[in-house]
Amino acid sequence: MSAPTRDALHFPPSSRQPIEPYLPSSNLSASQIRPFTTLTYATSLDHALSLSPGVQTALSGPESKAMTHYLRSKHDAILIGAGTAIADNPSLNCRIEGVGGYGGNGLEGQPRPVVIDPRGRWNVSEESKIVRLAAEGRGRGPWVIMREDVDSSIREAREKALNTVGGRVLTLPSTCSSLDWREILRLLAREGVRSVMIEGGGVVINDLLGPRYFSLIDSVIVTIAPTWLGKGSLQVCPDERVDEQGRKVAVGRLKDLRWVPLGEDVVLCGRPEIG
Amino acid sequence: MSAPTRDALHFPPSSRQPIEPYLPSSNLSASQIRPFTTLTYATSLDHALSLSPGVQTALSGPESKAMTHYLRSKHDAILIGAGTAIADNPSLNCRIEGVGGYGGNGLEGQPRPVVIDPRGRWNVSEESKIVRLAAEGRGRGPWVIMREDVDSSIREAREKALNTVGGRVLTLPSTCSSLDWREILRLLAREGVRSVMIEGGGVVINDLLGPRYFSLIDSVIVTIAPTWLGKGSLQVCPDERVDEQGRKVAVGRLKDLRWVPLGEDVVLCGRPEIG
Repeated sequence: MSAPTRDALHFPPSSRQPIEPYLPSSNLSASQIRPFTTLTYATSLDHALSLSPGVQTALSGPESKAMTHYLRSKHDAILIGAGTAIADNPSLNCRIEGVGGYGGNGLEGQPRPVVIDPRGRWNVSEESKIVRLAAEGRGRGPWVIMREDVDSSIREAREKALNTVGGRVLTLPSTCSSLDWREILRLLAREGVRSVMIEGGGVVINDLLGPRYFSLIDSVIVTIAPTWLGKGSLQVCPDERVDEQGRKVAVGRLKDLRWVPLGEDVVLCGRPEIG
Repeated sequence: MSAPTRDALHFPPSSRQPIEPYLPSSNLSASQIRPFTTLTYATSLDHALSLSPGVQTALSGPESKAMTHYLRSKHDAILIGAGTAIADNPSLNCRIEGVGGYGGNGLEGQPRPVVIDPRGRWNVSEESKIVRLAAEGRGRGPWVIMREDVDSSIREAREKALNTVGGRVLTLPSTCSSLDWREILRLLAREGVRSVMIEGGGVVINDLLGPRYFSLIDSVIVTIAPTWLGKGSLQVCPDERVDEQGRKVAVGRLKDLRWVPLGEDVVLCGRPEIG
């Protein structure tokens, strides 16, 4: 085992303990029809993900950041939408001390980065941070999921950038609507992904919290930072839900929940209550 | 001391202790230029106050409700906007066990209800819950703050309803804009109010969290319930703030903060960080 690198993050056992029950089991079978799915994001008190759409905003504190990397180490894959990949040029690897590239062997503990990009908008190249980290052995080669009817020249350019670092393009049938989450999760399960942590951005989160897909989520881990971002921010707000009488009702609620203060933030862990 | 009434609420000492530092001191002077001001509200995870504007939504659990009544007992006055008074027909008294009307003597521990109604929209009458409770000795007579240029027939009708239960109409100069919070707080201080708990609704909360008035707040106590209400809800979202370079920045942040899990909810206590 090599020495931990300078930028490795530490998440102490005392902080790990309260969130442990919400993590995927370590003995999940590879034959599930969909992976164990964790939805995670950080918001302000006015439930914004960032100051404006497309702008990256450091919301949560260092302890919450270390938690995110710890959570990544506990999932086979981490997933974001193309909008976030384009806006943030994210690293999407795991920097918790002891994983591969950060003191550990090979790529042990490094999750597979997955970008949902149905229309092939994300111009991934060897300059992308995510590809550079994979080339340096500090992350796995990313998978990009696009529709099979994306122009072949675009698809080939993406494959060229990805294949050199062990990444791939995976395709969804073109009969699917842009974001059919049942189809996406089935595709991941077929590729052997037993657990996936979905990290954003706004479109993806609102979609999964909405009435159509909420039941696909196994765990929700939300970090709330003690700040208000104000009007014009990118907000978490799922589509409304109405009951049989056409009355507006709550979209979703969590059960088996736990609030964990962490630095200046709070972390809410829970499981969707399917009514 | 009479026996506690059936609907008195209990808030145990173990729950009181963590929020104690955020309450007004018991020896505040009556000669301050403005009262100690606590801003408090309950929201969903998508930071909504209710399912729709004008609809009352039970968001937080029984423990949080008891906390609200405990907080009321620690303030000279509690304040809401006319929109909330019209939509909710609220009781706006304190039902914590041991206060006047709930086991205690006279009106001891009962805060003064204050409704900000610049244009005289709230048709307060002897049918209003708040007036009935005052008539029954279970709350103080409400004060309604309106502009001095409100039609005299409206003002007289309001005074008639209020005066019978020890309530009053207080006036703001008509040179004030609708909600000049400095003026409102100065007016309350002149009337001997040493501490005020501001409870809502959306317009009032967003106004006070915004860049113009945030510095007037001494304590913020926010309850967050583990549910999402979805699009179309009445949301907390203050006006945006921009820095000298015209860049959007966070509107406000809390310091000296504490997250207190309470039943299924979490309570955030803090003080505004004035940047």
